[in-house]
Amino acid sequence: MIKKIAITGGTHGNELTGVYLIKKWQDQPHLVKRSNFETILLHTNPQAIKECRRYIDKDLNRSFSKDILTQNPTNYEARRAHKLNALLGPKGDKNTEVDFIVDLHSTTANMGLSLVVSSKSKLTWQAVRYLCEKEPTLHVYRWMGDEEDAFVDSISPNGFAIEVGAIPQGVLRADLFEKSATLIYHLLDFFESYNKGDYKDENKQIDIYDHVKLVDYPRDKEGNIIAMVHQELQDKDYKLLKKGDPIFLTLKGETIYYEEDEPLFALFINEAAYYEKGFAMCLSRKINLAT
Amino acid sequence: MIKKIAITGGTHGNELTGVYLIKKWQDQPHLVKRSNFETILLHTNPQAIKECRRYIDKDLNRSFSKDILTQNPTNYEARRAHKLNALLGPKGDKNTEVDFIVDLHSTTANMGLSLVVSSKSKLTWQAVRYLCEKEPTLHVYRWMGDEEDAFVDSISPNGFAIEVGAIPQGVLRADLFEKSATLIYHLLDFFESYNKGDYKDENKQIDIYDHVKLVDYPRDKEGNIIAMVHQELQDKDYKLLKKGDPIFLTLKGETIYYEEDEPLFALFINEAAYYEKGFAMCLSRKINLAT
Repeated sequence: MIKKIAITGGTHGNELTGVYLIKKWQDQPHLVKRSNFETILLHTNPQAIKECRRYIDKDLNRSFSKDILTQNPTNYEARRAHKLNALLGPKGDKNTEVDFIVDLHSTTANMGLSLVVSSKSKLTWQAVRYLCEKEPTLHVYRWMGDEEDAFVDSISPNGFAIEVGAIPQGVLRADLFEKSATLIYHLLDFFESYNKGDYKDENKQIDIYDHVKLVDYPRDKEGNIIAMVHQELQDKDYKLLKKGDPIFLTLKGETIYYEEDEPLFALFINEAAYYEKGFAMCLSRKINLAT
Repeated sequence: MIKKIAITGGTHGNELTGVYLIKKWQDQPHLVKRSNFETILLHTNPQAIKECRRYIDKDLNRSFSKDILTQNPTNYEARRAHKLNALLGPKGDKNTEVDFIVDLHSTTANMGLSLVVSSKSKLTWQAVRYLCEKEPTLHVYRWMGDEEDAFVDSISPNGFAIEVGAIPQGVLRADLFEKSATLIYHLLDFFESYNKGDYKDENKQIDIYDHVKLVDYPRDKEGNIIAMVHQELQDKDYKLLKKGDPIFLTLKGETIYYEEDEPLFALFINEAAYYEKGFAMCLSRKINLAT
């Protein structure tokens, strides 16, 4: 039985879709109210939202590791992580305050509507499958990226992040705002149906994109970026890369090609926030997952 | 006779196209070298580039007013403005250090390749016309926006800004990077031809978009944005707006329509940096200008 779920936004303060969806629903709470569980709405990083920045000191969505949550917080986001863990968790506990967290993000990559899932819980994957049925354009990426198990949604036993793009940082796009809202309404309907026992778990399988590796930009000895994502790969998220496909164009105009023997799917291509993290794209394998 | 011109980038530190074009040409100076004048390359806002932010204290591209340049500088960008004015100007002088400034920008609006022109000089408009002939997709916007005569290029008697989009802040796009570079090469060819006396000034006319007014986002009493650019207007820069066309979608889902009697062309639609400046788009009149 699901008693309480949290919809969170503004974890990255310059990803306005989540910031404004939370505002919208705070003004119109009936839209996210359902009959048999409670929905709470939360801006997770208020100072970053105020300054329209990704973060103040450290990326909040990498701040929920056990290390950070068990040490004295030394920066703004670590303090937020402790507070959110108390409010929504505590992480790893049998009786967390909320049963499910869905964290709203946007990306400059052309990811359309995507879920980023790290949780292994059965309920999470049932919800994922339900959303894939309702929204056939939805892509599911199973994350094992730069840091593991440190996302906002990891506080709760169940949850995931929604990523929607392409949207520049600091910008609202009406089309993708509406699509994100609709996906949340489907998710809430799923919980309601699940609680009523109406949801038939037919153990169907779904296709997902499973993380394989991160690819950094070509850099010089000092670490400066010396190439861009190639124009033929730009905006082609979830494209299958094959050996010999162009992936980068150097500032001098030379093309760099994909050299892996195994064809892999590229995603999070040219996401602004990942320049500093050191990756130009994620590579993934498409697998059929029994949920 | 043109003796020295400046290509500047990174005036806004998160507009990477200009930042990286300057880097490219610093590494390959032969690409911007011509036979009969000198080209200098400059990152105008090094600290903002380092932090990948639009500015540190104030918008540098609104910091070249006579007021700021004649008072003691009180913030980082004002100090930069004074230095740049000494290096490239001084503004208003008969013998400025450089004869022409082209300042490289990018925008989250879908502006394609655009020029933003404030200068009234004959040479500037000859260069504009030359570029329009070489690049038929180029749009020309005559700016009378939020602040007048305070752009980087106003230090020099001649110049303009190049705006290219749609590009998120903090992102390089190879396609638009290459297009911006090509436009600069045409401009340099124009100067070379002009100096040789090869350029025939046939006093042709060109179509430009002349500034009429700024339109802000709908806001509540506290100044909070309560609507987004409507999905039918998003990405439609240089579209003619007619009475009754949708322009905004409120967070509640209501459409707001264009109500002016005169049809006007919208541009800089949904530019990230203009949320804080208080405008959602610029409206302009298409006119045929005798240059």
